Amino acid sequence: MKLTVDAVVFSYIENQLKVLLIKRAFDPCKGQLALAGGYVQEDETTEQAVLRKLKDETGVNLDYLEQLYTFSDVERDPRGRIVTVAYYGLIAPIKTEFTLNKHASDIGWYDVNDIFSYDLAFDHMKIINYALDRLRNKIQYEPIGFDLLPQYFTMTELWMLYCEILNNEIDRRNFIKKFKKFDLLKQVPFKNSTGNKGRKAQLYEFDEEKYLVAKREGFNFDI
Amino acid sequence: MKLTVDAVVFSYIENQLKVLLIKRAFDPCKGQLALAGGYVQEDETTEQAVLRKLKDETGVNLDYLEQLYTFSDVERDPRGRIVTVAYYGLIAPIKTEFTLNKHASDIGWYDVNDIFSYDLAFDHMKIINYALDRLRNKIQYEPIGFDLLPQYFTMTELWMLYCEILNNEIDRRNFIKKFKKFDLLKQVPFKNSTGNKGRKAQLYEFDEEKYLVAKREGFNFDI
Repeated sequence: MKLTVDAVVFSYIENQLKVLLIKRAFDPCKGQLALAGGYVQEDETTEQAVLRKLKDETGVNLDYLEQLYTFSDVERDPRGRIVTVAYYGLIAPIKTEFTLNKHASDIGWYDVNDIFSYDLAFDHMKIINYALDRLRNKIQYEPIGFDLLPQYFTMTELWMLYCEILNNEIDRRNFIKKFKKFDLLKQVPFKNSTGNKGRKAQLYEFDEEKYLVAKREGFNFDI
Repeated sequence: MKLTVDAVVFSYIENQLKVLLIKRAFDPCKGQLALAGGYVQEDETTEQAVLRKLKDETGVNLDYLEQLYTFSDVERDPRGRIVTVAYYGLIAPIKTEFTLNKHASDIGWYDVNDIFSYDLAFDHMKIINYALDRLRNKIQYEPIGFDLLPQYFTMTELWMLYCEILNNEIDRRNFIKKFKKFDLLKQVPFKNSTGNKGRKAQLYEFDEEKYLVAKREGFNFDI
């Protein structure tokens, strides 16, 4: 029995939800797209392993990491009995640069709406689908979406992020009203330059400290 | 690297939330209370392993099973490097009988409010706490609580279950109003005999089919 880790890393680039995939440089599944990941060593936790493998194989630094699920189908890996602990992570769009290395013949951000047409290695499609479900659920009851946005964003950008992730037309007015009622966003004293109809749009910042206080007092983030 | 599974099994007996623990018959931690569990075999998934170990070590049959979390602290087991995939399960109170066997010198249902005073084996206290957090969260947005009740129950019994699990005084009237608004409970054509002030109380049954239809149509169970 061997144990590996795999990382489903999402970012939000040019209004699209993307997942980080590498093209495998070695067999098995050489040349196929796959998640970053690898064997857990004797002296590290699975969380330490996934951060190490991500650094070695892609060079990216996450803003959010969470254990997703452990996949243990008996036939899931042609190398033999390998159980994998999958994680998912989020990265702000300004940090999405990666470093090419010996583990991958290529690395890239792939639109999650397209990946279903690719032939992914192992059971990685199943793992990505599981991560997408978790992200879609969790973004509705925890403020993790802000880890996919730049520090300052407009209300329209926040709304577009939710529409993209939930694959949904969300009523813009109700959405903005709800967020304003939450009172978790700070107006910042400058505007962006690409507002609607030439008008500059107000920029906001997520007030994490305020959220943590409100949460302790029983506030439920619920979109 | 070895892989085990552990099961946190909850039931609700005499208005108390209980967890199933065995007294270990062998070293390490002989004589200490522990979760049921053991090594995953080469030809089974972790889910198959946990069901097999539960059957062998306790004889119980679950009504609900869910993967909880994989625990991988390097020093968590004195036998060496062992990672464990923890599950949690629920059992209706009428099915809480267990079978004594060679793996355990004793088996029992322990009140979760008391277990913190026991010296549990390995990191099993940490695992139980993690399962309690999950149960407390999940019971508020999925109707899993019904797996802890008999098929027919009164509104007061349902309310008391939520009070016990959430460790909370919940406003009885609002709670019942909310559940009636959900419209997921069927009145059954008989009453229980131990109602308040000698009156017999109406019995209800959870309408799972109705819930699944409502969920597909966008209904959010949210207490």
